[in-house]
Amino acid sequence: MKIVLIGSGNLAVHLGPALIKAGHNLLQVVGRTNTSTAKLASKLSCDFTTNPKAISIQADVYIIALSDEAIAGYAKLLPKTKKLILHTSGSVSSTVLKITSTEYGCIYPLQTFSRNRKVDFSSVPLCLEASTKKSAKQLEKLAGSISKNIHWIPENQRKILHLAAVFANNFGNHLYVIAEGLLQKNGLDFELLRPLIAETAAKIKNNSPQNMQTGPARRGDSGTINKHLALLKNKDQIRRIYEILTKSILDHDGPRL
Amino acid sequence: MKIVLIGSGNLAVHLGPALIKAGHNLLQVVGRTNTSTAKLASKLSCDFTTNPKAISIQADVYIIALSDEAIAGYAKLLPKTKKLILHTSGSVSSTVLKITSTEYGCIYPLQTFSRNRKVDFSSVPLCLEASTKKSAKQLEKLAGSISKNIHWIPENQRKILHLAAVFANNFGNHLYVIAEGLLQKNGLDFELLRPLIAETAAKIKNNSPQNMQTGPARRGDSGTINKHLALLKNKDQIRRIYEILTKSILDHDGPRL
Repeated sequence: MKIVLIGSGNLAVHLGPALIKAGHNLLQVVGRTNTSTAKLASKLSCDFTTNPKAISIQADVYIIALSDEAIAGYAKLLPKTKKLILHTSGSVSSTVLKITSTEYGCIYPLQTFSRNRKVDFSSVPLCLEASTKKSAKQLEKLAGSISKNIHWIPENQRKILHLAAVFANNFGNHLYVIAEGLLQKNGLDFELLRPLIAETAAKIKNNSPQNMQTGPARRGDSGTINKHLALLKNKDQIRRIYEILTKSILDHDGPRL
Repeated sequence: MKIVLIGSGNLAVHLGPALIKAGHNLLQVVGRTNTSTAKLASKLSCDFTTNPKAISIQADVYIIALSDEAIAGYAKLLPKTKKLILHTSGSVSSTVLKITSTEYGCIYPLQTFSRNRKVDFSSVPLCLEASTKKSAKQLEKLAGSISKNIHWIPENQRKILHLAAVFANNFGNHLYVIAEGLLQKNGLDFELLRPLIAETAAKIKNNSPQNMQTGPARRGDSGTINKHLALLKNKDQIRRIYEILTKSILDHDGPRL
């Protein structure tokens, strides 16, 4: 398919090569900043523009890989078309694209993308939604060409997936940041914690996290919990996070006696 | 070395085989419940008892692999000795063992252990502490025989490591539990989230988590944050967790504009 990719951020940087690898013809990269757009276009050996009015009208599919808050506004800038227009967001309704085309939908990759880290797109879960049967057929063909892990997920469920992903990924990573901060302030190397973090994630590859919960809250070990709170006595926010997550584990699992 | 292992829980179940694999002579497993103690002893082909008075006096080293809250109480039950006595806890002072021997210390494995999951002990960070030079020499030999990743860590730092491990592992896993609950209640399969969780941990194998933070809080995307809070309007505790972790990310990183 002939594709225009709108965006030059973390997702576009990974999606572009995946589209080319799948044999698609990437006509153009459209970005908001000249430097990153030119850089991505050069990497993908294709045209680029930062002017929404200069977007190629030759494509079969337009993919808006912009941040959630930018999608609706950008859709308004696009020329009207009869082609398929997609966004890639977990939290934005695909109906914001209706202003541009009757053929619209969503291709939401449930994965975290960082600029300097390769991701194997073929195993990334892609959550799909389309406005018409025709769009659905085209979208399924496109999505199936870049991943073996595709799912039709209606908007309400997609939004729950996005919320759950924030807990598992964004908040999970922030807990690592807190842990790293505690170590650094006490002259300890974060390296010490890496095997534990790897194993925490590896454990639930084949298990429900419910069955993998351990620790003082799970054991109802109030002695250890109080020692930890004492260590955090001058760190109000981290202590509150400790308290609420401990309470949530106790409420959820009950102490295991 | 001739070793008595006290405990038959998650850690003992993994530590026992690691000690045997390293060539030590496991004289006896000492447990508090007959069934699990007999089972572990049978697996390790060694004697067992549940009576602290019947503990072998032939060992070079006694390792108390009991839960944190049980260690001090159990140490009081043990016969006085001149041999090395160790506990395995991150949060308990090793001085609670002084009542039993002047040669005491700690061997704290910074890893999470589940009964039915193999762990490669040779890469587990072992945090060591010892009461005398003699104990230290013996402990270093013992620890070095089961892991290539050993560290001398004084008590105050060990307690910080344990606290950081609670954030990264126990609280991290609880976030997975919350995510799984959100999916289940909305008819979605947790399988969808597994690649994201694996990648979240894999990303920080070679990076600082600070540089890997993404998501609506990191972007200062209040539109998406408010949509998420609306989805959680009937889930008070999960909403409070969302709020405090979002605030913590905002305070820590500031919005990236």
